Amino acid sequence: MKGMLTTMDGNEAAAHVAYRTSEVIAIYPITPASPMGEFSDLWSSRDQKNLWGTTPRVVELQAEGGAAGTVHGALQTGALTTTFTASQGLLLMIPNMYKIAGELTPTVFHIAARSLAAQGLSIFGDHSDVMAARATGWAMLFSNSVQEVMDQSVISHAATLQSRIPFLHIFDGFRTSHELSKIEVIPDSVLEAMMDQERIQEHRARGMTPDLPTMRGTAQNPDVYFQARESVNPFYDVAPEKVQEAMDQFALLTGRQYHLFDYVGHPEAERLIILMGSGAETVHETAEWMAERGEKVGVLKVRLYRPFSLKHFLAAIPESVRSVAVLDRTKEPGSAGEPLYQDIVTAFAEARDERDMPRIIGGRYGLSSKEFTPGMVHSVFNELTKSNPKNHFTVGIRDDVSDTSLEWDADFSTESDDVTRAVFWGLGSDGTVGANKNSIKIIGEGTDFHAQGYFVYDSKKAGARTISHLRFGSSPIRSTYLIREADFVAVHQFGFLERYDTLSLAARGATFLLNSPWSPEEVWDRLPRPVQQVILDKELKFFVVDAYSLARELGLGVRINTIMQAAFFALSGILPPDEATQKIKDYISKTYGKRGEAIVRKNNDAVDAALDHLSQVVIPASATSTIEYRPSVPAEAPDFVQNVTAEMIAGRGDDLVVSMLPVDGTYPTGTTQWEKRNIALEIPDWDPDICIQCGKCVMVCPHAVIRTNVVGEAALANAPEEFKSASASWRDMKEDRYVLQISPEDCTGCQLCVEVCPAKDKSRTGHKALDMVDQRPVLERENGIGISSNPFLCSEMDSEQVLRVTAPVLPAMVHPPPLHLLPSRK
Amino acid sequence: MKGMLTTMDGNEAAAHVAYRTSEVIAIYPITPASPMGEFSDLWSSRDQKNLWGTTPRVVELQAEGGAAGTVHGALQTGALTTTFTASQGLLLMIPNMYKIAGELTPTVFHIAARSLAAQGLSIFGDHSDVMAARATGWAMLFSNSVQEVMDQSVISHAATLQSRIPFLHIFDGFRTSHELSKIEVIPDSVLEAMMDQERIQEHRARGMTPDLPTMRGTAQNPDVYFQARESVNPFYDVAPEKVQEAMDQFALLTGRQYHLFDYVGHPEAERLIILMGSGAETVHETAEWMAERGEKVGVLKVRLYRPFSLKHFLAAIPESVRSVAVLDRTKEPGSAGEPLYQDIVTAFAEARDERDMPRIIGGRYGLSSKEFTPGMVHSVFNELTKSNPKNHFTVGIRDDVSDTSLEWDADFSTESDDVTRAVFWGLGSDGTVGANKNSIKIIGEGTDFHAQGYFVYDSKKAGARTISHLRFGSSPIRSTYLIREADFVAVHQFGFLERYDTLSLAARGATFLLNSPWSPEEVWDRLPRPVQQVILDKELKFFVVDAYSLARELGLGVRINTIMQAAFFALSGILPPDEATQKIKDYISKTYGKRGEAIVRKNNDAVDAALDHLSQVVIPASATSTIEYRPSVPAEAPDFVQNVTAEMIAGRGDDLVVSMLPVDGTYPTGTTQWEKRNIALEIPDWDPDICIQCGKCVMVCPHAVIRTNVVGEAALANAPEEFKSASASWRDMKEDRYVLQISPEDCTGCQLCVEVCPAKDKSRTGHKALDMVDQRPVLERENGIGISSNPFLCSEMDSEQVLRVTAPVLPAMVHPPPLHLLPSRK
Repeated sequence: MKGMLTTMDGNEAAAHVAYRTSEVIAIYPITPASPMGEFSDLWSSRDQKNLWGTTPRVVELQAEGGAAGTVHGALQTGALTTTFTASQGLLLMIPNMYKIAGELTPTVFHIAARSLAAQGLSIFGDHSDVMAARATGWAMLFSNSVQEVMDQSVISHAATLQSRIPFLHIFDGFRTSHELSKIEVIPDSVLEAMMDQERIQEHRARGMTPDLPTMRGTAQNPDVYFQARESVNPFYDVAPEKVQEAMDQFALLTGRQYHLFDYVGHPEAERLIILMGSGAETVHETAEWMAERGEKVGVLKVRLYRPFSLKHFLAAIPESVRSVAVLDRTKEPGSAGEPLYQDIVTAFAEARDERDMPRIIGGRYGLSSKEFTPGMVHSVFNELTKSNPKNHFTVGIRDDVSDTSLEWDADFSTESDDVTRAVFWGLGSDGTVGANKNSIKIIGEGTDFHAQGYFVYDSKKAGARTISHLRFGSSPIRSTYLIREADFVAVHQFGFLERYDTLSLAARGATFLLNSPWSPEEVWDRLPRPVQQVILDKELKFFVVDAYSLARELGLGVRINTIMQAAFFALSGILPPDEATQKIKDYISKTYGKRGEAIVRKNNDAVDAALDHLSQVVIPASATSTIEYRPSVPAEAPDFVQNVTAEMIAGRGDDLVVSMLPVDGTYPTGTTQWEKRNIALEIPDWDPDICIQCGKCVMVCPHAVIRTNVVGEAALANAPEEFKSASASWRDMKEDRYVLQISPEDCTGCQLCVEVCPAKDKSRTGHKALDMVDQRPVLERENGIGISSNPFLCSEMDSEQVLRVTAPVLPAMVHPPPLHLLPSRK
Repeated sequence: MKGMLTTMDGNEAAAHVAYRTSEVIAIYPITPASPMGEFSDLWSSRDQKNLWGTTPRVVELQAEGGAAGTVHGALQTGALTTTFTASQGLLLMIPNMYKIAGELTPTVFHIAARSLAAQGLSIFGDHSDVMAARATGWAMLFSNSVQEVMDQSVISHAATLQSRIPFLHIFDGFRTSHELSKIEVIPDSVLEAMMDQERIQEHRARGMTPDLPTMRGTAQNPDVYFQARESVNPFYDVAPEKVQEAMDQFALLTGRQYHLFDYVGHPEAERLIILMGSGAETVHETAEWMAERGEKVGVLKVRLYRPFSLKHFLAAIPESVRSVAVLDRTKEPGSAGEPLYQDIVTAFAEARDERDMPRIIGGRYGLSSKEFTPGMVHSVFNELTKSNPKNHFTVGIRDDVSDTSLEWDADFSTESDDVTRAVFWGLGSDGTVGANKNSIKIIGEGTDFHAQGYFVYDSKKAGARTISHLRFGSSPIRSTYLIREADFVAVHQFGFLERYDTLSLAARGATFLLNSPWSPEEVWDRLPRPVQQVILDKELKFFVVDAYSLARELGLGVRINTIMQAAFFALSGILPPDEATQKIKDYISKTYGKRGEAIVRKNNDAVDAALDHLSQVVIPASATSTIEYRPSVPAEAPDFVQNVTAEMIAGRGDDLVVSMLPVDGTYPTGTTQWEKRNIALEIPDWDPDICIQCGKCVMVCPHAVIRTNVVGEAALANAPEEFKSASASWRDMKEDRYVLQISPEDCTGCQLCVEVCPAKDKSRTGHKALDMVDQRPVLERENGIGISSNPFLCSEMDSEQVLRVTAPVLPAMVHPPPLHLLPSRK
C-alpha cells in the first residue's frame, strides 16, 4: 500500500501516527518536542478523529510530571495513551516511567531527543535525555530520518501492544524533529492492519474499573519484591522478536523493511562504526561512499536499543569485522564509558566463545546538535586503521585540554553531484524560512525529487539570522548535516555581508543571489573586499535584486520573501520557468488566500516583477573594495568578549577550542553591551513635552534599551541641539533636567514601551510620549544598508558625548535605590 | 586521634558528619533516609553548632525537587550545603544534579539507597535509585557498614571540596541506615583537619554575589555546548586520586584506611566477587572463611563507583584471578547487563592488552532488602568453578519462570562461635525494640564487645510483629544479614507461637525465653505441637516469665519491656548478673528520668521482680499437644489468598517462587478480609441509647472496622440477646432498626472513632456513644492468650449470623448512594 507523498518534519510525522492511534494525549510541550503536542492539541480542537473515529482527548498539564502521571492514570483505565517530550521534561517523567514499565503497560512516548542542562542549558539535540531514562525498563527505538519517524512510530505503537513493554520512540531533536522532508504518509489501512485489535482489547481488559476491581500500586516488602521484579523477564526476552515481527509486517504492507540492527557497507567490512539516531545516516552515506571506493568499512545502525538483543546484534555484523568504533551522542562524566559503547563491549565480551573480540573504541560526537559530517566519519574510520587507536575520543570539536578529539578534514565531502544544494541567509521574521518551506513543498510534491530542508535559527529568535539549508535530488537524501558546498547561496539582507562569511558555504561556480539596494553597476564597490575575493576565487555567478524597494513599490511593505523565492526558482532551474511561476502562484493562493485577494495579487505581481528586476552582475577582474568585515565587537571589549563572545556572534563558535570555554558555566556579565544587533526597523521616539516621567517604559523594556536620568543643566551644556530633555518633575529636582535616551542598536522594536506609555497628547490623535518611528531612512542615510553602527543615532549625539552627559548619575542606574528612597513627586 | 565509642545507626552517623560540616541543609525526608533530615532539623532547633560555630540552617521543602533546587541555589551563594534522600526522592533531584555537576559544585547528598517503585512500591533497600542517577556526572562513594558511613561521610565532604565534583555518599537503606552498631565517632579535630579551609574559601569565592556579578545557567548553542561539556574532563580525571588522598589523610588521622577498591581474600585468588554496599561485608566474611579453608577466593569492594578509575581497579585485583562474578543490587530490564557488571566487563576489556580477560558473569541479589547470606555467596563462588557458569543470574530467590536463580544452601554458615546471637519476637509498640536498643548500648558501651542490632518491622507498623536481631562479639561484625542460628530466642507475645515458626531461628541448645500467662508447669501443654517438637529436637533450654501479669501488678500496665530485658540479661550471661542489673537500672533512669521518680521506681522494681519470676520449664520427653499452627487464612479463602497472601502473612513470603507473583503488580482486592490481625487491646463499644446515628465513626475509621445498617425488625428475630440495635432515626424508616457493628479483629485500637463521636451522655462523665473498652479479659476468657479468632466477638454473635442479619442492605454499603439521595432525617 503506497501512502501519499508529502512534505513534513519529524515532529509532524510522529504526531500524525500518535494522534491516529491514541485516545488520550497528555502534553506539556517542551522544545524541540513542542510541535507534536501543539499539532495534537490543534487537531483535537478541530475534532479530527483517530483510527477508531473518536476524537483523542488532549490535556495540557502543569508540567511533565503531571503529564506522565496523567498518562499513567489513563493507561490504567485501558485507554490508548501517548505523550511527547524531551530533555528535562523526560527527566520529570522518570518516576512514572518505572511504574508504567513495572506494570507492563503498553504506551509510546515520542521523544525529540535533546541535551540536558549541565554547565549550560541547551535546547538542541543529543541523546543525554533518553540515556538518563535507560534504566527504567522501557523499550527504546531510534529513528534516523523523517520517513523513519513516521514508520517507526507505527512500529512502536504496534510493538508496545504486542510486547506490553512501553516504548520511547526517539529521534534527534531539531536535526530530525525539525527537518522538512518529502515522505510517504502511512495510509490508515496500514495503521489499522498494524494496530492489533485483539491486543487492544487485552489492554482494555486490563484497565481498572470499579465493576471488576483489582489493585495496583501496592507496597511490596523484601519477601516478594525481588521475585516480582524478575517475573517480567519473559516479556523482555521476547520483546525484540515482537518488534522484528512488527517491522516485518510493516515491510509487507509498505515495502520499507527495518531490522533491530541494520548493517550497511562493504560485505566484508573490517572496520565498523556503530551508532544510532540521525548521525547514522551520515555514516551510511560515508561508508557507502568509501566502500564503493574499495574500503572495507560499514555501519551498524542500532534501532532497538532496549531491550538489547545480543542475538540480533551479533547476527547483523559481518564476521570480517576486526575493529569497531561505537559513537555515543551523550556524555556521562566519570563513567567507565558511554552507554552504547559499554553495551557493545559487553555484547562482544559475552560472545567471546563464538567469535574473536574485535578492537573496540568509543567516542562522543554531536553533543547538542554539534555538526557531524562525512569528514568526521572518515576520521573515525581512519582511527580504526591504527594499531593503537584513541579510546573515549571526541569528534567534531578541538579538545586542547584533554586531547580527546580526532582531527578531521573539513573539506571531505561525499555528497552526490546529482543533488541540488541551496543556502539562504535571512533575517528572523523576514519570511525567508516560510518561503523556503514552500519551495521545498513545491519541488517535493511537484517533482520526483527527494527534498530536504533544515533551518538554523539563532536562539535569539526574532530579528536574528536564519540560515536555510535545502537539498533536492533524485536519490534519498541521507545528509543529516548542514550544507558546506552549496550550488546556490542567497543573502536576503545586504548587511550580512559585512558581518558573516556568507559565501564560505558556496561551492566553486555556484550562483550567488543578493538582495541589494545597489544597482548591478554600483553593487561591486559596496561589497566588502573579502566577499569580492571569494566571488573571484570561486568564480561565482552573481545576481542582484533590490527586493526591499520592489516590495515597497508593490505595496508589500518589508515582505521580500515572494520576490526572493521567485528569483531562486528563476536562477536554480530546478523547475521549468513557467511551471515554477505557476506553482509559486498556487502556493501564494494557499498561503495568503485567507487574507484577501489584494494580498494575493500583490504577491503574484511580485513574482513577475522579481524576474524582471533580477540582474546579473558583471564581475571585475580584482577585489578593490576598501570595506572589510566588520569586527563583531569593538576593539575596546574585554578579552573574553574578544576571544569568545565575538567569535560566537560572528558564527565561528564551532571553532572555539575546549580551553576557551568556562569549565563550570560561569560567564562574565554585561557582555551584551558589546553586541550591537541593530535589528529594529522601527524604534521608539520620545516626546518630552507630554512625558509624565513615570518610568514605566524603562521598567518594561526587556532589553534595557531605555534609560532615564536626572542631570544638572550644566551637564547638558555641550549636548547637541537635537538632544531632548525636560524639566524634572520631582519637587527637589526642579532645577534639573530629565533625560530619556533610547539605544537603537539594542532595541528589537517590540513596542512594549509604547504599549505601557500612559501619556497621550490630546491635541494629536493617539500620539503618545513614546511612539514608534521608522528608523530605516535614518539608517540608510547613515550607511546605505539599513543597519546602523551608531549606538545613539536618534539623538544624533555620539556615544562619548552621551556617556559624558549621563556619567554623573550612572552609578545610581546600575544599583537603583529602593523606590521608597526616591524623592517624592512635585 | 581516637573518637568516642558509641552506638548509633547509619543515618545518625551520616547526619552527624553532614551537620557538622554544613551551613545549609535542605530536606524533604523520605524513608529510609528520613532520620538524617529529622536529626538535622532537631539539632538545628536546639541551636547545635557546626564545626565553625554557626547553626546550620535547615529548611524543609515541599518535595525533593524543591530540596534539590534549594541546595543548588545555596551552593551558588558559596554555602556548604547538603541534603539526604532516597528512591523516588532522588529521581526528583536528577535535573538539578546535572546542573550542580555541570557547574562543578562541591556538595554531598547522603543516600540511604532504596528500591524504586515499579510493579509495586517498596521502602526497602537496593541500588536502583542511585543507579538511576549514575549518568549525572556525580561521584558515587559506597559505604558498607555504620562505621564506614561515618568515615566516608567525612571523606566525601573532604573530597568534594578537593575535586569540585559533587558526591552521592551511598549506604544501603535499612540494612545500614537502620542498623545499630558500636562505632567510633569522628572527633572534631579530625573533621577540622579534613575540611580544607583553603578549598572552602575557594568555594565561597565562586559564590554568586551582586558585588562581583557573574552569570551562570546560560543557554548554550551547538557552537559551544560540546566543547564546554568536555572542559570538565581534567576534574574527573584527577577526582579518584583526590578521593584516595582524602582516604589516606583520614587513615593518618584515625588509623582506618580505605581505598577506592578494597580487596579481601586469598592472596592468589582465582575466583573473585565484585560488589558494593553492605552485601560486600557478607562476601568479605564468607570469602575469608573460605580462604582460611584453602579456597582461592576473594572479594573486591567497590567504594568509589564514579568516577570509575580503571587504573585503581586493575591494581587492586590479584593477577591470579581467572573468573569473576559481579553482583548488582539493581535490575534494569532490557539492558545488556546491570551497571556494575558492564563497567567491570568494560574495564577488563580495555585492559586486554595487559592482562588476560577473566571469565565474567553478572548477577542480581538483594533487591529491596532481600536477604543476602553466606550461603548465597558460597553459591556464587561455586558457580565460578563451572566451565559454563550462568550469566545474568539471580541469587536469593527461586526463579521458576526464567531459571535465572542459583541454588544455595540455606544452612551454610560462616558465623563465628565467639559471637552471641539473640532474636526477640515482639509486638510493634510493645517496647521490645526500644529495650533491645538499650541492651545494645549497655553491652556496646559497657564492654569491649562489638555490637550490632537490626530490627525487622512489618510494614504494617504499629500492632504488627517486630523481630530484633542482636549480635555481640569480640571481633568486628560483618554479618549484614539476619540471624538464622540464634543462641537466644525470646518470644514476647504468647500468641505468636501459633502463628509464626518463631523457633526456626534457634540454634541447637539455644535458650528460649517465653512471655507466658501460663505457669512453668502448665505451659508445655499450651504450646502448639510443632513448637514442642522443635524444643525437643533442638534441645532448647526453655524459660518462662509471666510478664503481662507482673507488669500489671507493678503498675506498669502493658509495658513488659523492662521485665523481658532483665530476663534476657539474666539468661544470656553476657554481663555479670550484678553489673547487668545495675546497667539496666542506669538506663531506666536515662530513659524514664523525665517522667518522674515513680516510673523509674516501678521499672527498677520490674528488673528485680523479673529475676524472681523467671522459671525454667522442665521439658517432657515428647510432643503431646493437640494444638497446631493456626492457618493464616481460613480454608475458604480464594486460591491466590491461600497460596500467596497467606504465605506472606505467615512470614514465608521469601519462599514464594517467581511464578507466584503477578507480572504487572495486579492484585485481587478485598484480601484483607482474610487476614484477621487481632492487634487491638482496646476496641470501641457502642451505646445505642445515646448514639445520634450520624455515621461519622464509619466514615473516619481507617480500617473499615465499623459498619452501620438499617434492617427490618424481622431480620433481628434470631439475633442473640446481647446484639444491640436502636430505632432508626430516619422519618421513613421509623419501623426499622439501626445496627452498628464493630469488627474487633480488624480494629487497631486507634480511637479515631471515639474522637469524632459527637454523642455524649450528659448523665455520665465523658461517656460517648462510642467508647474504648479493654478486650483483653474477653480475649483471655475466649482462648487464654489474649488474641481472638472470633470476628464479631463483642456482639457474641457468630459471623454467619451477622452476615445473615446485615445481608439485606449490604449492597448499599458497597456502593453507597450519594449523600443527597439518602432519606432526610426525622
